[in-house]
Amino acid sequence: MFEAAELGQKMSKAEFKEKAPLMRQKLLEAQRRLAEANFPVIILLSGVDKGGKGGTASILNTWFDARLLVTRAYDEPTQEERERPEFWRFWRDLPSKGSIGIFMSAWYSRPFLDHVFERSSDDHFSVEMERIADFERTLAHDGALILKFWLHLGKDAQKRRFEAFEADPLLSWRVRDQDWKHWERYEDFVASAEELVKRTSTGFAPWTIVEGEDENYRTMRICTSILEALDLRLKEAEREARHRREDAKRAAKEQDKKKNKKKKPDEENELALPEPATVLDTLDMSRSVTKKEYKVRLKELQGRLNELSRRARDEGVSTVLVFEGWDAGGKGGAIRRMLGGMHARNYQVISIAAPTDEEAAQHYLWRFWRHLPRAGRVSVFDRSWYGRVLVERVEGFARPKEWRRAYAEINDFEQQLVDHGDVVLKFWMHVTKDEQARRFEERRVTPHKQWKLTEEDWRNREKWDAYELAVNEMVERTSTKAAPWVLVEGNDKRYARLRVLEAVCDALERRLIRAAEAAEAPTEAGTTS
Amino acid sequence: MFEAAELGQKMSKAEFKEKAPLMRQKLLEAQRRLAEANFPVIILLSGVDKGGKGGTASILNTWFDARLLVTRAYDEPTQEERERPEFWRFWRDLPSKGSIGIFMSAWYSRPFLDHVFERSSDDHFSVEMERIADFERTLAHDGALILKFWLHLGKDAQKRRFEAFEADPLLSWRVRDQDWKHWERYEDFVASAEELVKRTSTGFAPWTIVEGEDENYRTMRICTSILEALDLRLKEAEREARHRREDAKRAAKEQDKKKNKKKKPDEENELALPEPATVLDTLDMSRSVTKKEYKVRLKELQGRLNELSRRARDEGVSTVLVFEGWDAGGKGGAIRRMLGGMHARNYQVISIAAPTDEEAAQHYLWRFWRHLPRAGRVSVFDRSWYGRVLVERVEGFARPKEWRRAYAEINDFEQQLVDHGDVVLKFWMHVTKDEQARRFEERRVTPHKQWKLTEEDWRNREKWDAYELAVNEMVERTSTKAAPWVLVEGNDKRYARLRVLEAVCDALERRLIRAAEAAEAPTEAGTTS
Repeated sequence: MFEAAELGQKMSKAEFKEKAPLMRQKLLEAQRRLAEANFPVIILLSGVDKGGKGGTASILNTWFDARLLVTRAYDEPTQEERERPEFWRFWRDLPSKGSIGIFMSAWYSRPFLDHVFERSSDDHFSVEMERIADFERTLAHDGALILKFWLHLGKDAQKRRFEAFEADPLLSWRVRDQDWKHWERYEDFVASAEELVKRTSTGFAPWTIVEGEDENYRTMRICTSILEALDLRLKEAEREARHRREDAKRAAKEQDKKKNKKKKPDEENELALPEPATVLDTLDMSRSVTKKEYKVRLKELQGRLNELSRRARDEGVSTVLVFEGWDAGGKGGAIRRMLGGMHARNYQVISIAAPTDEEAAQHYLWRFWRHLPRAGRVSVFDRSWYGRVLVERVEGFARPKEWRRAYAEINDFEQQLVDHGDVVLKFWMHVTKDEQARRFEERRVTPHKQWKLTEEDWRNREKWDAYELAVNEMVERTSTKAAPWVLVEGNDKRYARLRVLEAVCDALERRLIRAAEAAEAPTEAGTTS
Repeated sequence: MFEAAELGQKMSKAEFKEKAPLMRQKLLEAQRRLAEANFPVIILLSGVDKGGKGGTASILNTWFDARLLVTRAYDEPTQEERERPEFWRFWRDLPSKGSIGIFMSAWYSRPFLDHVFERSSDDHFSVEMERIADFERTLAHDGALILKFWLHLGKDAQKRRFEAFEADPLLSWRVRDQDWKHWERYEDFVASAEELVKRTSTGFAPWTIVEGEDENYRTMRICTSILEALDLRLKEAEREARHRREDAKRAAKEQDKKKNKKKKPDEENELALPEPATVLDTLDMSRSVTKKEYKVRLKELQGRLNELSRRARDEGVSTVLVFEGWDAGGKGGAIRRMLGGMHARNYQVISIAAPTDEEAAQHYLWRFWRHLPRAGRVSVFDRSWYGRVLVERVEGFARPKEWRRAYAEINDFEQQLVDHGDVVLKFWMHVTKDEQARRFEERRVTPHKQWKLTEEDWRNREKWDAYELAVNEMVERTSTKAAPWVLVEGNDKRYARLRVLEAVCDALERRLIRAAEAAEAPTEAGTTS
């Protein structure tokens, strides 16, 4: 695989000097076009030690307009970072639409070294490479242009580079003992690199292998690749936009034609399945508790939660709670009663409304990644990433292929939380349509509740059936053992609040028992966090 | 995940009877449109025991036109099948473009049961699910519409089904002891099913979970899904065709405009990299052997190969050899000399020319899968799947995104051969451009060689540089430790033939030593075959 990057490719200083000004001009032009476009560019530089990653990053930083460019290198994760799933820091650093992010090895680094030094099995390495491919696929589907360069040196060439650095008193610090130690395992490095490149060279995020020895050649090779790919992608974006415009025009025309035609008896309706039952129909909506019982149980449960959340804080077990439900379904009340059992420094509530400018310029999952809790804390999402498959689906804000692939993206996201050891629990606060009407009316006539009722609530209500189907599919596709949906019978507010509190307590307790068991069996302890 | 399929959904007999005729008519209409279209449909039925897979397949066979439909169920692999990589039998059975294939559990069955019964680790199960996703992605990228239905029953519902069968003397044979044994592990089944559905529910091949208890409901639900998806996909195909036509028209117009304009000095050329060196430039083309030396070495090597190929036959080690190279590069001669060392019943030579009708109606890899060798045999491909990234790329027969993703598809394909224990070796028979000219001339003037020289050879020669770049990238992306490219210096035919023979011998020998070592360490024996 790397034979083609051990050819001794070179570019003379004179030729480089002649070409550099035009290349810089072209790169700036492309960057200007990108700023107007609606996608980010991710350039990943990786490869063997001293293959020229750092030098290349410096040049790109000089040649591009640095204001629309971020460069990220990663050390051992900080305490802050270790307290979240591994990809948290990469999500945080993603470039926004119209800008460029340069990443140094980044998400490849740790899994690669683990495999080279046989800290991970071949199967586990495959799984990790697959997680990376999923991550890159998620970004690419959202439009990101992903270019990955593997800077290669032959074994002798690498030795020469080390020796050249060491011979220069000003640069000798750049070669560390570790570099020579790695060099002795050169063959292991190359074998793992081959697997890495093979498994993550996808259509949407291909690797380009670049011979790293000659700086001028390497620089021009990478810049040419970036330029070509960027130009192609910009043209593609224009073409897609044109197709969308043309399709919309055509659709509008056909709509007009239909209007003028008389309606035929609709065959499709004859084939419709019987009114589909949904998981929501299985709920016993008559459930309720008396006021007296409620007062006692509420105190009990809040006390229990307080105890559990302290232990979770001590153990570093984080919790992610999601609340979705009908308008006036009782989300807010349930959240407040639950939080009544916890110390304020242990939780944060994230209310999800329309995205900010900054959020809109990123992948839709980005805004949720940034709010993940630190170790031992609780993040409560009042509405969440499920908006993608609920409101965005029903209102047509997301295209069918966008919300359809969101199920897999969401499962993957939550799996990373679970793998990190977090408790993940999702609540659907359910009320019947009649009960919602009653509550709307109550809000309408009660002065201090009027602000809660908006035009939008009425509009959403008209789409009740469409939402019900969306909820059913959401539960079917995303309720997993590790991150289940709890469907809460909410016609009686008191019952609903206790139900939520109890579910949170139960889940926390189960997780803490597992943590305790893991602590007792020290060989397995590493797998739970 | 399965809550939404335990709702007790039903359709009355009367309603079913009323709807069935229209559904059948609609399905037949869709099938007729499909026959004109250029993609296959893969319907996969899987799920819990007695969930209704068989019944559904029967109905689909009755309602669709059975002439354009194949149904495949799989038992334990036969001897024939075990001698090839696991996916061989699935590739063999794929429906051709315009037709429908119904698959019963198929590629999911073995990995699923291995995981349920803890014969495979979680990591290994992930790797296997990923291989399935890759397989389905490969087919979907080629246009296949893939619909997967998971027929679910709740634990009680499954028990009821078993008991209902047992109560009927005519049907009681359908419930075996094994079914009840599985039922006792119901929770393990469902846990593995959740993982399976989660990991392989992709945008291009989603699972639909269907409640299996009521036959009428289940049938109508599946038929409705098929109808909707098929209609959507047919419309999409039409839309894509329209976009292609419009783009082609626009491109032609722009071409005309350009022609009429005066040429500007071409900036792009100023930026061109120095004449790129390729791996082919590293070859020492002066290598040769004397006639005398050749005669001796040829006999020696053929004898060695004879011995090795007998041992491989005994050990059941299969070999896949690929020959690519320039026209008049000496492929044919090298293949013949090599086969001189083997018994004719041990090998087959597959000469790849234009695909047959049957082959053209399948994924481009299909025609190669069907020719994989049985255990211990040798398949020699004279030209191969690499046509995708050579001639199809250079001549524009494959679109850029098609040949770009072919690298990953090919690596995946060859990895399956390697995982199955096969020897995989690929030869590029290289001659210099001058030497090719000399050979063409020789063919032109030698009466018994004239048939070998065609117009196409001259046309290919004009594209020498483009082919060189394609070869370089092919080697870069597909030469792996397990399935390497051997670049053969072929200006001297004798040298080239010995080089090929030697490489085959060496590879076989290494593989047989590994097999012997594995046999001595019995715990690892299972992993080599």
